[in-house]
This record gives sequence, structure tokens and C-alpha cells, in this order.
Amino acid sequence: MDRSRLEAFSDGVFAVAITLLALNLAVAGPGPGHPRLLDQLQSHWPAFVAYLISFFMIGIIWVNHHVLVRSIKAVDRTLLFLNLLLLLFVVLIPFATATVAEYLAAGGQDAGVAMALYGGVFLGMSAGFAGIFELTLHGERMHRSLPAERHWEARRRFVGGGLVYVVAIVVALFSAVASFVIIALVAVYYIFERTPAPPADADSPDGTGSQGN
Amino acid sequence: MDRSRLEAFSDGVFAVAITLLALNLAVAGPGPGHPRLLDQLQSHWPAFVAYLISFFMIGIIWVNHHVLVRSIKAVDRTLLFLNLLLLLFVVLIPFATATVAEYLAAGGQDAGVAMALYGGVFLGMSAGFAGIFELTLHGERMHRSLPAERHWEARRRFVGGGLVYVVAIVVALFSAVASFVIIALVAVYYIFERTPAPPADADSPDGTGSQGN
Amino acid sequence: MDRSRLEAFSDGVFAVAITLLALNLAVAGPGPGHPRLLDQLQSHWPAFVAYLISFFMIGIIWVNHHVLVRSIKAVDRTLLFLNLLLLLFVVLIPFATATVAEYLAAGGQDAGVAMALYGGVFLGMSAGFAGIFELTLHGERMHRSLPAERHWEARRRFVGGGLVYVVAIVVALFSAVASFVIIALVAVYYIFERTPAPPADADSPDGTGSQGN
Amino acid sequence: MDRSRLEAFSDGVFAVAITLLALNLAVAGPGPGHPRLLDQLQSHWPAFVAYLISFFMIGIIWVNHHVLVRSIKAVDRTLLFLNLLLLLFVVLIPFATATVAEYLAAGGQDAGVAMALYGGVFLGMSAGFAGIFELTLHGERMHRSLPAERHWEARRRFVGGGLVYVVAIVVALFSAVASFVIIALVAVYYIFERTPAPPADADSPDGTGSQGN
Repeated sequence: MDRSRLEAFSDGVFAVAITLLALNLAVAGPGPGHPRLLDQLQSHWPAFVAYLISFFMIGIIWVNHHVLVRSIKAVDRTLLFLNLLLLLFVVLIPFATATVAEYLAAGGQDAGVAMALYGGVFLGMSAGFAGIFELTLHGERMHRSLPAERHWEARRRFVGGGLVYVVAIVVALFSAVASFVIIALVAVYYIFERTPAPPADADSPDGTGSQGN
Repeated sequence: MDRSRLEAFSDGVFAVAITLLALNLAVAGPGPGHPRLLDQLQSHWPAFVAYLISFFMIGIIWVNHHVLVRSIKAVDRTLLFLNLLLLLFVVLIPFATATVAEYLAAGGQDAGVAMALYGGVFLGMSAGFAGIFELTLHGERMHRSLPAERHWEARRRFVGGGLVYVVAIVVALFSAVASFVIIALVAVYYIFERTPAPPADADSPDGTGSQGN
Repeated sequence: MDRSRLEAFSDGVFAVAITLLALNLAVAGPGPGHPRLLDQLQSHWPAFVAYLISFFMIGIIWVNHHVLVRSIKAVDRTLLFLNLLLLLFVVLIPFATATVAEYLAAGGQDAGVAMALYGGVFLGMSAGFAGIFELTLHGERMHRSLPAERHWEARRRFVGGGLVYVVAIVVALFSAVASFVIIALVAVYYIFERTPAPPADADSPDGTGSQGN
Repeated sequence: MDRSRLEAFSDGVFAVAITLLALNLAVAGPGPGHPRLLDQLQSHWPAFVAYLISFFMIGIIWVNHHVLVRSIKAVDRTLLFLNLLLLLFVVLIPFATATVAEYLAAGGQDAGVAMALYGGVFLGMSAGFAGIFELTLHGERMHRSLPAERHWEARRRFVGGGLVYVVAIVVALFSAVASFVIIALVAVYYIFERTPAPPADADSPDGTGSQGN
């Protein structure tokens, strides 16, 4: 199994999932008893915010997925199924986003459950990434192996990422909006972060580095 | 017709089908008379289980499709249409999954019909695979031909796979849940199976084997 | 503009359109007043037949598109927009299929209008193909030019294809089912046709021919 | 990060978005109280016109995106996120198209708001293009740098494109139909325009030019 078809399939899933996000934005058609379009769009603000955050989260996952996969030398069945595990949660993002969009403004327990679901999907996705990363550290699967002292640095970042989602899930039980802000900050952080997380360490040997030398 | 576009089109279909699976999970929005979100999610358990199983089934089909296609040397119109036959059933998986998700908890005859439909879609998919495999055995279509004594071994595996779906369909008439468990076990089997089924035999010559030698 | 990205985009559109076809098959969930699942599936027969025909029609268009595009040497903006015209009608196929599925069994004028729409979409698609073919005949756009006496042969086949859709549209005004059968026969014809239509003539120089010689 | 996966992901998004456009065309099924199919199709004319315009707009964006991306030598994280910004608005096109289709015939303030939304989505998309173009002008990101005097020419075209959308948004406040016509004219202009806009200037060195010389 060569890497290119793994990438093509994953890119397809990312592209469909990111495009399906906008299906949640649909407004009701004109008709007696329906609110004005402007009022509908305004009361839809959680849907637009959720669209924005989920769009960039999927975009970030796509970028990081690409960097991580490029560092991998041999694609075997274990990797394929870990990749499927990652995609399992990516495919759930439009569903979790739609649920947040509908329930965030409702407040109360429902809003908290929606945000816990949203955080849980990202936690699962993060676990999939961690699984792929751990796998590639073993058995000569990378183009150039990371020095052992950097493994823990990389893991710390991974565990750190996953921990933020755990925090967001716990916070959701008390304040759905605060939990939403935490996940939005993760998206903003990754957009402006210039030192790519662990995958990029792994990638640099055969990435820009190999071209530069 | 070169193989790469056959793969690109098939990968596109797999990616869209696997992502559409999550559309079935949608919950009703908040409103008077609607149940709490947590209650909705709990009563949706068949939808989540069906999502999980169908997701990995499509993932497994994708992996096996890739292995089988790689063993093929010449892509002709007969192969293209057998591949379309396989995809015809892959595209039906989200529909069959949605039907199972809605009717499994309803029980009675409806649940059995839903499961028979679900098993039937996998049986059709399995027949598509068998057709492609039989075709590639003839007329010098493989990179390296399988020895004749291995044909039957390979076929036994294929027929075996299809037989499990036949069993699942028959069992569905008596117990929808038991039928569901059988198909779930097929998914689990394929995830952990390390000796890839027939396609991989066919693939080994130019796959890992050619790299190893 | 190189050919590969034209193919990648077109394959993406084909893959999404063919997968969306199955969305029309969805049955109503269980509930008071809803018919049994088996009755729903049986009364849905036009949806299943329409799915089958449209699936193979898109599959055939994909195969022929591939053969035609491979014969093209230079991709310019005119070709890109003719290709978009072809895709414009491909994207309409799931919509036209859903309309036929809903209205064929209703009979009367509505069924005829649905079938005329269905035939019209294929007629438009066919015009897109004819446009691409005519364009490639001019200005040294093919890898090897067709001899002039074969242009008319190729055109006759194209016009012939389009004429069948015109017949199907006219017949739809009298009998929707007869019109449906005509389009089904076109699909069956193309599946079993072994001498590919004009595109394949154009393709043979650098296709199988170049490998064989 | 190599360019090919950026293209593959973007092409996937374009392909899904352009295919989802047709979902808006769905008609109501037959039933008591439902209008005849022919009447439904006729009263749906804004949906068909909106489909046509949005289809070609996405097609044009795809063509121009391809030309622009081909002129880029180095793909870095800044470019990836500018590309995501562009795609963020592309993914919104089916939603904006559906809103226009539903509200254009309604007239009044709602129609104006729908058209302002439609124009706004294209303005955002245009800003994403401008961002990518400005980025590629700096830091040796192009295969061959544009002479400085051509920068302003290119920018004028870009700003000009964006200005048309601003005009369409302002006009929408007075006449939704007039605003619709303006955006339709942009689509027609780009289909027949033979001198590709700035991206093509940037592209020509390694595009047609390099083949011609």
C-alpha cells in the first residue's frame, strides 16, 4: 500500500466533511409565520460561529495529517486502521457542529451536553493522531528516527493537545459558552502557530530540510 | 485506461459514502415537545452502533479494493463495469445503514427486513469483489499469475466471506440483533486480520514481496 | 493547465454525484401511521430502478469522459468551460433521478414531465460531450488526428446518441414508462458495447494501440 | 508540504461544493394539495438561474485557483491558511445560493438581504484570492517574479473584481434582481475572457509560455 492512496482517500474525507459543515446553515424558506431572513440569520449566530471554528479545525487537522503522513516510510494495515480511527472522528465533526449550532443558544443542560459531544469528537480525533504518532516511532516506520529525548517533548505536546479537549469537556458541564471559547482558542492557536507540533519535527528531515541540503 | 483514474474515482466514492454515514446521526433541534438532547443521544444508540460498523466496513472495503486493484495489470471495460458493480453496493451502504439505524430498535418484522437489506448490500458488494477477482485470474490481467492450487484457496475465502452475509440475512428473519452482531464480527475480524484475504495473495508479488526481494 | 487536474476535478464531481443518487432511497422512519418497511421498499420500486439506471449512466459517462480526455493534448480555457458544461448536466442527474423516482408511479402529465426532464439532462450532457469532441478535432488538440472520413462516422455516433435522448423526451409526452425503458436500454447498450464510441477511436493511437504496436 | 496535496484537497472541496448546488433544486413529491410538477418547476426559476450562475462561478474559481497555485513555488503554512480562507467562502456558496433561490422571488427586504449575502460570499472569496496573490508576490514564492510595474496592473484587476461584488452588495439594498444580474454578468465575463486575470500573468512563465518557447 503506497502513501498516495492513503492521502487521496483521507483528503477526500476531509474535503467532504468540511463542505458538509455548511449544510447546517440553511435557513427556512419564506412563508407565513416564518421570521424575516435578517432575523433568521441573526438568530443563527451560533451556527455561523460553529461553522467557522469547525471549518478551521478540519483545515488544521488536514494540514497536520499531511505533515505526519509525509514522515511515514511504510504504510501497513495497522497504520491504515489507525488512520480510519482518526477519520471516524473527522466524519463526526459536521454532526457535532450541527448539534452545537442547534443547542448552544438553548442553554441549560442541553447546551452542555452538545459541547461535551463536540469536545469529545476532537478528543477522539486527537487520540487517533497520538496513535499514528506512537506507531510511527516504532519499527523503523519513519524516514529518519527522532532522537529519544525528543519523543517526550513530542508526546507532551500531544498529551497537552488532548488535555485541552478534556478541559473543554469538563468545563462544558458548567458553562457551554466557556467550553466553546476554549475550543475556538485551540483553532486560533493552531492557525498562528508557526512551529508545527510533533509531526513537523518528524517531518523536517525529509521535508524542507532534505531539499535545503 | 490507466489504473490511477480508476483508483481516484473509486476513492472519491468511498470517501463520500463514508462521510455521508454521519448524516444519519442528526438529532432534532430544541423545541417544545422535543426530548432532552441526552435522551435523544441515548435513544439513538442503534444509529451510533450502525455508524461504527458501516464506517469500518467501508474502510475495510477501501483497503481490500486497493490491494486487489494494485494486483491488476490491464484495466479494460469489463473490469471498469465490474468495479462499478462493486461501487453500486458501496453507495447503498449509507442508505442501508440509515434504515437499520431507524428500524433496529423498532423490533419485529421491520427490524428483520432492515437487517436483511443491510446484509444484502454487503452480499452484493462481496459479489462485485468476487467478480473482479475471477476476471483478474483470466487473460493475463495480473502482474504475476497465482498458481492454480491457490485459486481455490482464494475462492474459498471469497465464498466464505459471501456465505457469512448469506447467514446474516437468514438470521435476520429470526433475530435482527443477532444478524447485526454477525456483521459486526465480520468488521472486527477484518480489522485484526493480518493475513490479507485473496487479494493480498495476488498482490504480494509486486507488493511487499517485490520490495523485500 | 495540465490534464491531471481537469481529471481530478471531474472525477470528484462524478464521485459525489453518483454517491448522492442513493439519498433518494431514504425511507420514512417507524411511527404510527407509517407503512411497514417492506411495503415502503416495495412501493419505492421506481426509486430503485431510477437509482440503478442513473448509477450506470454516470458510470458510463465517467468511462467515456476518461477515454475522450486522454485523447486530448492541450487543455485550454475553451475546453475547460466545455467540460464545465458537461459537468453542469452531470450534477443535475441526482436531481432529475429524484424527480423521476417520485413522479413515475404518479402517472399522468407529472410522470411525463419528470421523464422529459430526465431525458433533457442526458441530452444536455450529450451536447457537452459533442462540444468537447468537435473542439478536439480542431487546432491540433489531439495526440493524433483522426482521418477526415472518420469524423463523420464519429459524429454520426454522437448525433445518434443525442437523438435517442430526443426520442425519449418526445415519447415521455405519451408514455413515461416507455421513455424510461428507452433510457434504460441506452445504459444496457453502453455497458455491453465493446467497441467504444468516437472518443475511443480518437484514443486508440496513444491508448491500447500504442501499447500493442 | 508539496503543492499536489493542496490541489487535491482544494479540488475535492470545489467538486463537493459544485455538486451540492443541485440539492436546492429538489421539488416536493406528489400528494394532495401539492402543485403539478410543471408548475413547481416553473415557479422554481430562481433556483435554476441561481444554480446556473453559482455553478459557473465555482467553475471559474476552480480554473483561476489552478492557474494561481501553479505559479507558486513554495507552499508554507501561511499559504495553506490563506487557501483555507478562500475555501471557507467557496463552501458557503451552496448555502448562499439556496438562500437566494428561496428569497429572490419573495421580493422586498428579504430578497435584498439574500443577495447581499450572496455578494458577500463572493467578496470574501475574492479577498482570499487577493491574499494568496499578495503573499506569492513576496519572499520568492513564485517560479518567476512578476516585474514590479505589472504588480499594480494585476492588483487593479483584483481590486476591480472585488469592487464589482461591493457594487452588487450595495445595489442589493435597492434591487435584488439588479444585483443578481451584476453577478451573472461577472460569470459571463469570466467565461468569455481569454486573457486570464493576474494569476495567469504570474503563471505564463512556466505555463503556456514555457511550452511555446
